Amino acid sequence: MTKIIAINAGSSSFKFELFEMPAEKEIARGLIERIGLGEGKFTLQSAAGRESIERNFKNHTEAVNVMLESLVSKNIIRSLDEIEGTGHRVVHGGETFSEAVVIDEAVVKEIEHLSEFAPLHNPANLMGIHAMVELLPDVTHVAVFDTSFHQTMPESSYLYSLPYKYYKDYRIRKFGFHGTSHKYVTERASKLLKRPLEELRLISCHLGNGASIAAVKAGKSLDTSMGFTPLAGVTMGTRSGNIDPSLIPYIMEKTNKSAVEVLNVLNRESGLLGVSGFSSDLRDITDEAKRGNERAELALEVFGSSIHKYMGSYAARMGGVDAIIFTAGVGENSALIREKVLDSLEFMGVYLDKKTNNQTVGTEATISHSYSPVKVLVIPTDEEVMIAREVMDLMG
Amino acid sequence: MTKIIAINAGSSSFKFELFEMPAEKEIARGLIERIGLGEGKFTLQSAAGRESIERNFKNHTEAVNVMLESLVSKNIIRSLDEIEGTGHRVVHGGETFSEAVVIDEAVVKEIEHLSEFAPLHNPANLMGIHAMVELLPDVTHVAVFDTSFHQTMPESSYLYSLPYKYYKDYRIRKFGFHGTSHKYVTERASKLLKRPLEELRLISCHLGNGASIAAVKAGKSLDTSMGFTPLAGVTMGTRSGNIDPSLIPYIMEKTNKSAVEVLNVLNRESGLLGVSGFSSDLRDITDEAKRGNERAELALEVFGSSIHKYMGSYAARMGGVDAIIFTAGVGENSALIREKVLDSLEFMGVYLDKKTNNQTVGTEATISHSYSPVKVLVIPTDEEVMIAREVMDLMG
Repeated sequence: MTKIIAINAGSSSFKFELFEMPAEKEIARGLIERIGLGEGKFTLQSAAGRESIERNFKNHTEAVNVMLESLVSKNIIRSLDEIEGTGHRVVHGGETFSEAVVIDEAVVKEIEHLSEFAPLHNPANLMGIHAMVELLPDVTHVAVFDTSFHQTMPESSYLYSLPYKYYKDYRIRKFGFHGTSHKYVTERASKLLKRPLEELRLISCHLGNGASIAAVKAGKSLDTSMGFTPLAGVTMGTRSGNIDPSLIPYIMEKTNKSAVEVLNVLNRESGLLGVSGFSSDLRDITDEAKRGNERAELALEVFGSSIHKYMGSYAARMGGVDAIIFTAGVGENSALIREKVLDSLEFMGVYLDKKTNNQTVGTEATISHSYSPVKVLVIPTDEEVMIAREVMDLMG
Repeated sequence: MTKIIAINAGSSSFKFELFEMPAEKEIARGLIERIGLGEGKFTLQSAAGRESIERNFKNHTEAVNVMLESLVSKNIIRSLDEIEGTGHRVVHGGETFSEAVVIDEAVVKEIEHLSEFAPLHNPANLMGIHAMVELLPDVTHVAVFDTSFHQTMPESSYLYSLPYKYYKDYRIRKFGFHGTSHKYVTERASKLLKRPLEELRLISCHLGNGASIAAVKAGKSLDTSMGFTPLAGVTMGTRSGNIDPSLIPYIMEKTNKSAVEVLNVLNRESGLLGVSGFSSDLRDITDEAKRGNERAELALEVFGSSIHKYMGSYAARMGGVDAIIFTAGVGENSALIREKVLDSLEFMGVYLDKKTNNQTVGTEATISHSYSPVKVLVIPTDEEVMIAREVMDLMG
């Protein structure tokens, strides 16, 4: 049996999950926080329970070293030799990576190069890669990109109506994100529906603090709501989604902010937080709305309708839809939002079973009526297992 | 019989149409160009034919004076007393004007005030108003706003997911435009379909050099593609429509342009012109695409699919659709674009009659099959007659 680690490295954090493959059995998971910032913390969870130690980690290599040593000292694995592969989440694969790849020097260079598109994420992802390559030099390391699933989009989806030279010179185009999640849930939907992906037209709603919708036809992303960056598309926790582009210069003038400062407002002070005025967390907002808070109700309306519109839009894009999938924090847990998103879609064959919808919290379920031509599924996402699968595939 | 002049005043131009009401019979139309710029030109068309004179017009009042005198000297009207009302197109009515209004001092002040939202248009519209009020002090002058038809939109349509204070302090919201045209064609559709507006769910596609889509339910605008400004929404002749807002700071950095300069690129060098690289005119692009020009084909694809997505989106918004309307230059004349926009919409009940579609150029027609649950109509727009109607309504 093969052991594979799936890794999501941030600039000061390191999240991992250890799988036994191909059984896809999680045998440990953990998180290292505040790397390089002092007062670090390492939390490890396995069959033996959960424990955490506080310790300073100078850098990612030191953090990863502690993590690997713990796996052995806690008898989660016998020796490091058991680990045959690592899979790294990398946010931006640009137009270079249309699938996961085995990491070599050229790949590292290209991920560095693509940091231009994801200046906060790619360099952090690379810190995780460098640490693992240093400490496990003989295993297969794989990069799995958030963007690669969407590289199948046609030009009519990814090209903006801007001067064409912006695409040629600067690669300004729609990339799309959450690809690993959209891929996981659409593959899972195919299994649940007992129909091959090739014949399915799916709308995948990844609704977390960040949110994106994807139109997936025959297993391939045909369109998605996020764009050049994860700011675009639907209303999110703190992100605005699409707005009239004219508003950036207008807000700059009105508030005396720079373009970058306005962008910061769009990324961090908008979305549910901006409309509600008090929280980016849908649970808080739902609670307040129940108490009659009008701005909370408004935030729910704006959020729900921003997603609702994509249901029709992507059905049109695919000439109809066979199933709609909800995943991630909000998608898996909020019956209220699911109901808003599916409101009045009978014309396109969507019949929600409200009772089952209301009972579904964080578990796999079919929440459409049995007679509904369009199936509605709740599928908890699992990006880590998807990453482990990609590693297995590449290890042959 | 009442005579009414409908007016569309630009900063250096003045377009008018003289109607006999309530027959809605056009008895003259004309255009004055290059007002205040030297080498002006006045063109007048009536039953007597078309003639034009070249002359300098110092300002709008001088231009309007020449126009009015010509109407009498050419015996189009017997005296100026015959004119009982004028209707002025005004681009921006903000949140103040949800319908056409009789112009008085307070209205003029508010239109001035709203110039903030339409700095190029409202002041020009006001020049036309001032000239007409000065020369015809005793008739009813009416302002008809491009935005007012969309004032029925609910908050979930018009509110951006931005900090709420931007709406409160600066009225940053979706306004929508082309209201007079959307109102005209949807009222006309009700007549053609022999069904009251109250029971109709309509998608109105105003596709000209500027383009906007509106979801009109029970005669009321429920949503529309343009936003705070006419830049937002679908791909247009030279406008980008929606893009990832992050692109503005990104393009600024890459091209060393200011935010206002980038906005200029989005308004003037994008859209069909930007993608094709050679023209903003759909006819040129269609011709070139036929000759195998790939960038021209791409521009058609991008344009078509940007509108196509709204078909599903607005069907969802209204819980289905009874008819789709095409109007304005492209909408009335391009069978190719209509076909692209209606591609694969059978799932929502749209069955295009391709033969009739191909034969329809600039005339009223039903281009769906007789068995199509959703009717597709081509309706040449007539904003001038709509303006004249609004004047009649307000004259009681």
